[in-house]
Amino acid sequence: MKLNASDALIKTLINNGLEVVFANPGTSEMHLVAAIDHNPKVRPVLGLFEGVVSGAADGYARMSGKAAANLLHLGPGLGNAFANIHNARKANSPMINIVGDHASYHLKHNAPLTSDLDGLSNASSDWVGRLDDPKNISKLANTAWQTANSPSGKVATMIIPADYAWSDINIDIEPNVSINNPKSVDYNDITKAYNLLKKDKSMLFIGGRFLDETCLKLASHIASATNCRLVTDTFIPKIRRGAGLPIIEQVPYFAEMAELFLADTQSIVFIGSRPPVSFFAYPDKKSFLSPDSAELFELCSNDDDGVSALNELKDLSGSTKIDEKFIQSHIGDVPTSGDLDATTLGPLIAGLMPEDSIVSDEATTSSLLVSPFALQAKPHDWLALCGGSIGQGLPLAVGASLAKPDMPVITLHGDGGAMYTVQALWTQARENLNITNIIFSNRSYEILKIELDRVQAIETGDRAASMFSLDNPPINWCKLSESMGVPAYNPKTVKEFTDFFNKSIYEPGPSLIELNV
Amino acid sequence: MKLNASDALIKTLINNGLEVVFANPGTSEMHLVAAIDHNPKVRPVLGLFEGVVSGAADGYARMSGKAAANLLHLGPGLGNAFANIHNARKANSPMINIVGDHASYHLKHNAPLTSDLDGLSNASSDWVGRLDDPKNISKLANTAWQTANSPSGKVATMIIPADYAWSDINIDIEPNVSINNPKSVDYNDITKAYNLLKKDKSMLFIGGRFLDETCLKLASHIASATNCRLVTDTFIPKIRRGAGLPIIEQVPYFAEMAELFLADTQSIVFIGSRPPVSFFAYPDKKSFLSPDSAELFELCSNDDDGVSALNELKDLSGSTKIDEKFIQSHIGDVPTSGDLDATTLGPLIAGLMPEDSIVSDEATTSSLLVSPFALQAKPHDWLALCGGSIGQGLPLAVGASLAKPDMPVITLHGDGGAMYTVQALWTQARENLNITNIIFSNRSYEILKIELDRVQAIETGDRAASMFSLDNPPINWCKLSESMGVPAYNPKTVKEFTDFFNKSIYEPGPSLIELNV
Repeated sequence: MKLNASDALIKTLINNGLEVVFANPGTSEMHLVAAIDHNPKVRPVLGLFEGVVSGAADGYARMSGKAAANLLHLGPGLGNAFANIHNARKANSPMINIVGDHASYHLKHNAPLTSDLDGLSNASSDWVGRLDDPKNISKLANTAWQTANSPSGKVATMIIPADYAWSDINIDIEPNVSINNPKSVDYNDITKAYNLLKKDKSMLFIGGRFLDETCLKLASHIASATNCRLVTDTFIPKIRRGAGLPIIEQVPYFAEMAELFLADTQSIVFIGSRPPVSFFAYPDKKSFLSPDSAELFELCSNDDDGVSALNELKDLSGSTKIDEKFIQSHIGDVPTSGDLDATTLGPLIAGLMPEDSIVSDEATTSSLLVSPFALQAKPHDWLALCGGSIGQGLPLAVGASLAKPDMPVITLHGDGGAMYTVQALWTQARENLNITNIIFSNRSYEILKIELDRVQAIETGDRAASMFSLDNPPINWCKLSESMGVPAYNPKTVKEFTDFFNKSIYEPGPSLIELNV
Repeated sequence: MKLNASDALIKTLINNGLEVVFANPGTSEMHLVAAIDHNPKVRPVLGLFEGVVSGAADGYARMSGKAAANLLHLGPGLGNAFANIHNARKANSPMINIVGDHASYHLKHNAPLTSDLDGLSNASSDWVGRLDDPKNISKLANTAWQTANSPSGKVATMIIPADYAWSDINIDIEPNVSINNPKSVDYNDITKAYNLLKKDKSMLFIGGRFLDETCLKLASHIASATNCRLVTDTFIPKIRRGAGLPIIEQVPYFAEMAELFLADTQSIVFIGSRPPVSFFAYPDKKSFLSPDSAELFELCSNDDDGVSALNELKDLSGSTKIDEKFIQSHIGDVPTSGDLDATTLGPLIAGLMPEDSIVSDEATTSSLLVSPFALQAKPHDWLALCGGSIGQGLPLAVGASLAKPDMPVITLHGDGGAMYTVQALWTQARENLNITNIIFSNRSYEILKIELDRVQAIETGDRAASMFSLDNPPINWCKLSESMGVPAYNPKTVKEFTDFFNKSIYEPGPSLIELNV
């Protein structure tokens, strides 16, 4: 069948299940744009900066369980997407990058936009495929889809030279590919794990893609029967949480607290996670946090069949009932009046969160004001920053909302991180997404003030402080938001917050709440 | 002498001439922050996104002629800086990146912010040095300084593991390094070039760092005597231009126009530039633009001593006077009343531009409204986008203004590109820089509408058009600017524009003018 190579690429991906392309294309991607135009089964979503594009694809993947595609313009486009691709990789989110390149014969001329695209792709991705012949485009797209949608999601990057993208070819679209199943876990390992969990001071440590309601319930059965602790990572791609759902402890962020948290533990079984390490190294503090004497057993990675493993462990444990200590209680009194402050904010947000909301959390230090209370909110999905590169939260909300339009999204964001990819607000407005962005405006990189002490940096003054301060000039978040078409408000009382928040949640479209904390 | 390794790094760079560090640091750079704090000879400038940081360093380098340093946070920080580093490389701007990495012993743990930093550095830089021992830090800094400040500027990236940065060491600071001289040009090549230029239909093609007033005057002497054409690239790092200065033709952007522009040329001598190539490849259009029959002679690269070469060519030519046809005339009538529109805007801006202003031009299609008139403005420096990656103009203005605080900076920017690194406005406000940002708000990636036809992308509809449109929602540039502390205005008449523009130019601090075009 004669068709345009770009059409073949897009059709192949659609056959496999592609629904959304996040895009900021340029001249070298024009035929890919045309192919998207011609194939209405895929939805193009424009981001005004590629960090928005890749962050949105991550959010989409976390909520849909499959890859979106990013359409990017040569090396600089991929470079701009790098940080949120990094975050997606650390969250094991499936993702496909389609990066246009100069025409194959044009590369040798070192035109202005020529860069080391292959080197950059390798540094960004789990898999890179450079199209070497337009006839292979459907095969390449299948490989990219299959790789990205591995049990543990991968970042698959296709480099498509412009002259191949504009070629007419005579091929059939490849049949769609099957997705690889997770690797099954050896039953001997299951019994070994079970024996460890039965011991004193043991811990079941689950993470990655095993934090949905099913897995958490299985895990809390096991913990109920074996009396082990149930623990997960500090930062998690997605967890189902809220009142009535299983309680799982989280490793604290600060290394010394994490060390204390893990102290005395004698055995840990890992499912979908690895032995916890400190976020950064600090002088005279540990990097590897588990006690030296503990027996650590990595039962399954994210590529393995952790669900079956949890089922088998539960069967071995013989548990029939989850202990009440593993069941989250409902939030108590929710404030209805008074000033909005550090004590009212958390219970208030937790009380107002509707069932089946999605929280995109990048509030860093301010998250502590809300997250502990939100644990007792109505059941919801909580998405965190796994790669540590700030500027994920606003774009992640875009993708999450597109994947689950019926679930209202609540973004909790520090001001410093939100400035990184603030252009995401525009896409939220354009796509009329039901997102409520809460910006904690403390006018500083607050975490860095804490870290400066923790790394024992020698005495510093105003010049160092200026590098952590966003106070001069202060950012007017309401104006910033409104400039991109997102209505905004700066509430000062519980009543003002409640009214604006509820309106935002129960009416279509995005909004922004600036909180001065 | 016992000192902290970070202090040794900063002191070494200061000894060599470092004046400014553009920064967005994190935990792994805290000791470098402390070292900057302790050494008041270097000025720290915070950018709220690393694309601002690297773009500002480029602007500083173009106007000061030497490297600034960027302080960046691990792989993601460098990734965010990638696009404007790319632009800087294409402009041959000297630049030093200081990238903090995890502690050397922490890397194996694959903590959240671990990425392929070495791969990314290699893809970003002309030279990469990973510190292997804190004792070598002063030597490494010297090599980075020397490499960056090569005759043709380079991007030199140092990777500094956190544990080395926090080490106390017992070394002496290395003496500062000499900067390599440009390579001298063989006199036989000079005479060969001269003989080519004397021929019929010849062209002297100069670019790169040979576009200051001295070089342009030498070149116009040569052209006056030999009757060759005097030509430069479409996009140039910095050129001195304006009334009374030499006229130099520029290769048009569109390949077919460029081909016509070069047609019939029989010999071209290149100084600081290379044979022009098309920005992109297009179906059935040429990539390499010079006529096949022309004799092309690359006399000097940016690493060579083009100034001496121009002097020797001038001597050979015997020229004593620049032909009047090479001298730019003054702008004629400047509008003083009426509506602001496509016909009044160019002459108006050209007429208002004060002597010794700096223009940071990333207005893309809208630049055509202003640039031809600005050629006849009072003498000024014009900085363009050499790497083609949009989002350079606002940050470039930051660095240019810091390098030359007495020269008012005028940014001409398309709205699409300006959104990429819009956070630069905040740094402009914080540092109280005299920058007048003119945003041409046509609410689209206008150039892509043109390119869609030019690449012969098959018929497309609304879904493709949506990927080039910034119209829904429209961006309110005045609000956006004010939200970051930069006063803004949306003038509709010549008088309104004139008053606001003059106030902005002659008073300290930045401002923004939104033009709906």
